[in-house]
Amino acid sequence: MDSFETDVVVIGAGLAGLSAARELKRCGVDTAVIEARERVGGRTLNEPIGDGEIIELGGQWVGPTQDHALGLIRDLGLESFPTWNTGRNLFERKGRIRSYEGTIPKVNPVSLAEVGVALKRLNRMAEKIDVNRPWTQAELAAWDSETFATWMGRNTRTAAARDMLRLAIEAVWAAEPEDVSLLHALFYIRSAGTLDLLLDTEGGAQDSRVLGGSHLISERMAAELGDAVHLGFPVRRIRWQRMPGDTGDSPIEIGPHPVTVEADGLTVSARAAVVTLPPALAGRLEYDPPLPAIRDGLTQRMVQGTVVKCHAIYPEPFWRDAGLSGQATSADGPVSVTFDNSPPSGTPGVLLAFLEGNAARQATDLPPAERQRLVLDCLVRLFGPEAATPQRFVDKAWAADEFARGCYGGYLPPGAWLMYGEALRAPVGPLHWAGAETATRWAGYMDGAISSGIRAATEVIGAEALPA
Amino acid sequence: MDSFETDVVVIGAGLAGLSAARELKRCGVDTAVIEARERVGGRTLNEPIGDGEIIELGGQWVGPTQDHALGLIRDLGLESFPTWNTGRNLFERKGRIRSYEGTIPKVNPVSLAEVGVALKRLNRMAEKIDVNRPWTQAELAAWDSETFATWMGRNTRTAAARDMLRLAIEAVWAAEPEDVSLLHALFYIRSAGTLDLLLDTEGGAQDSRVLGGSHLISERMAAELGDAVHLGFPVRRIRWQRMPGDTGDSPIEIGPHPVTVEADGLTVSARAAVVTLPPALAGRLEYDPPLPAIRDGLTQRMVQGTVVKCHAIYPEPFWRDAGLSGQATSADGPVSVTFDNSPPSGTPGVLLAFLEGNAARQATDLPPAERQRLVLDCLVRLFGPEAATPQRFVDKAWAADEFARGCYGGYLPPGAWLMYGEALRAPVGPLHWAGAETATRWAGYMDGAISSGIRAATEVIGAEALPA
Repeated sequence: MDSFETDVVVIGAGLAGLSAARELKRCGVDTAVIEARERVGGRTLNEPIGDGEIIELGGQWVGPTQDHALGLIRDLGLESFPTWNTGRNLFERKGRIRSYEGTIPKVNPVSLAEVGVALKRLNRMAEKIDVNRPWTQAELAAWDSETFATWMGRNTRTAAARDMLRLAIEAVWAAEPEDVSLLHALFYIRSAGTLDLLLDTEGGAQDSRVLGGSHLISERMAAELGDAVHLGFPVRRIRWQRMPGDTGDSPIEIGPHPVTVEADGLTVSARAAVVTLPPALAGRLEYDPPLPAIRDGLTQRMVQGTVVKCHAIYPEPFWRDAGLSGQATSADGPVSVTFDNSPPSGTPGVLLAFLEGNAARQATDLPPAERQRLVLDCLVRLFGPEAATPQRFVDKAWAADEFARGCYGGYLPPGAWLMYGEALRAPVGPLHWAGAETATRWAGYMDGAISSGIRAATEVIGAEALPA
Repeated sequence: MDSFETDVVVIGAGLAGLSAARELKRCGVDTAVIEARERVGGRTLNEPIGDGEIIELGGQWVGPTQDHALGLIRDLGLESFPTWNTGRNLFERKGRIRSYEGTIPKVNPVSLAEVGVALKRLNRMAEKIDVNRPWTQAELAAWDSETFATWMGRNTRTAAARDMLRLAIEAVWAAEPEDVSLLHALFYIRSAGTLDLLLDTEGGAQDSRVLGGSHLISERMAAELGDAVHLGFPVRRIRWQRMPGDTGDSPIEIGPHPVTVEADGLTVSARAAVVTLPPALAGRLEYDPPLPAIRDGLTQRMVQGTVVKCHAIYPEPFWRDAGLSGQATSADGPVSVTFDNSPPSGTPGVLLAFLEGNAARQATDLPPAERQRLVLDCLVRLFGPEAATPQRFVDKAWAADEFARGCYGGYLPPGAWLMYGEALRAPVGPLHWAGAETATRWAGYMDGAISSGIRAATEVIGAEALPA
């Protein structure tokens, strides 16, 4: 069992943890990053597909106003390129496939109008939310009392409009309208700017990709941090001491290292810790002493979304010849959304297909071959018989990954935001919380993960945990 | 580090675990029970208050149709006695306190009628539910798409009726109408029989108590089991092997003990395991290999209710002199419900007060003295100035207990029952699941915990895990 001491121990070498460590290092603070996996990157991951090309099995997109992500990409000497967005998009519903241009499929005008009004209403409601402290806004209670499904049922009349809104929820949260608190959806919308921004390709959250893959962001940060990053050590227990001035048990003597993080095969003592795991997984660590009930209750309630990200790789992007963008949305499922995820050269041709929410829940525990068949059947319906025989099929079911247990991120069901939201970021003694779920700007996105790490680092440096 | 081998290892020495072990022992199966706490009883717990009397800090009531609990009490040579239910009850709302007889407070007739209709509707809806397999009933999807709050808003018009239904939800689930899926409420109602049964004192779920305290049930079972019960060993990790015929990875050789349970200071290998922790806590163990996503997803979604159970102990039950039963319900809070919890002799006088749902969430992390003040203020409003100065005040905030993290039991928010309910009881290889949350009859109650243990034991004995 190795053990050592440092100033700050960061748990998790994803975008949040590495950003925190990078910021701490920049400020001259001795830092160690402890990561369960044998790799950095958390919910981002490259997979080589030959000829120096890669696909991305996790988070991949960046877009305008994601200033932390775009800045970091620049800082690290990386480049972005636009998501392939030329040609006609497809929308499938009730066995019928229509092609269209832009973000909104051409269904019947009544449904289109309903969706338009719903988007405007949601954006307007979201403007009321203080993303920094929504739990102080008692006036939001009604929005936290119902599911998005209930709101949708009240605000749309046509089945086509509801299907389109359902697809929007699935695309953003990898969950169903029944799962998500209306307030959670509004928080997220506000945190990004508008629902349109969340859904859009060009100019929106799916605008651009990172040349060489988003995983390079983490790899380059890890390279800068060198041997401060410790891979393959799943953290199991955090022992901590209350800080001077904390309420609670009678005062105890605080040593210079009030935090001890115990991983399989490694123990690290520090003056403060930054935990970057999503709340659902952070709640599974053992804390000694146990955490306050409000923090524990948050970790019980924030659920990880469910997505299977699938890639079908073909010699060429054959759909482009037919004037198609590769972007499709299907209300018939199980694939809900597709993109052209080919490298900038266009070779090979890569179709990206998402199983999200219930479709992902039903597919995650299936044998891989069955999952592949489900997905290829959809791609054939959408893009024709050529889609049936990819050179290679690669998928990643994030809910089966024991160190993610879901993607894209965490969401709250009704009733939790106002009572438990406060515990998302509030430090507990020398323990600080980061991760995409704790962000106020672009919560749940790579950008939010990065900014959360920097925020936690700033918090630690400012805290009494680190007297000069 | 001690270690040994047995046939079946049971995790948790609450009513479920001890019932499972008792049934296994009865069938001649070698069994060990591993318990994190230094005591048995799980979410039941006696506290001595002098002169041989006790109060119960956890589950305490039994009632008609709880045949497993009543039978076990008889088997163990214990006796029950009726909950004190003589005198007038109180109902407080908007600063006004009314007294009444029976279960339903005398508010305005319109609200009373609304509540009556709502209860009838809920009972009728609940009849549609197959408590054994609600996840196969796709026709229930609409009921799982909304919170109880949404249903309540649609089915009542008066604020008084909504307040009364809110109190009912708080009393049964220790959660708010906003938290709970309508389908979850209906499942629970069906599992008990009717909502009236859940709410009633005489003839209902609060009908009777155990002489000497409900904790004796576990203590007597533990005494029968002798040194098969191992206290003070928090389980952290379960290593298991897939069973023959399981889908999954390529076949491996299954040893005679495909399960190894690792606790702090103790390792037990067995042919099968029964995990009796509530899903939220069972999900925090490490499983090697990791569990299927559907089981993990269930543990992410099933939340523990939040209750602080408070006892104010007085020389005599002074409220009886005023013709009061000690039962009160308050829409003004934070105490939502009270009972006369005096021992059968009537001395000392014990007022039991519950903080439930949001009130409990706000009170759990408070210093004990503040919590006491909050509660006594309510008792003074309800029962007069004598209530201000108990001889002793004892409370238990179950959400702060690291081995419970909530009470009374687990509930599901919308969207989870149909997709994840199947994983509540479905064994995973040699791992079997018990606990009050897994019961089909009186789910969440002591009766359900007991029957779940017996069911799991039967399952284990029938499984290939235990060839003769």
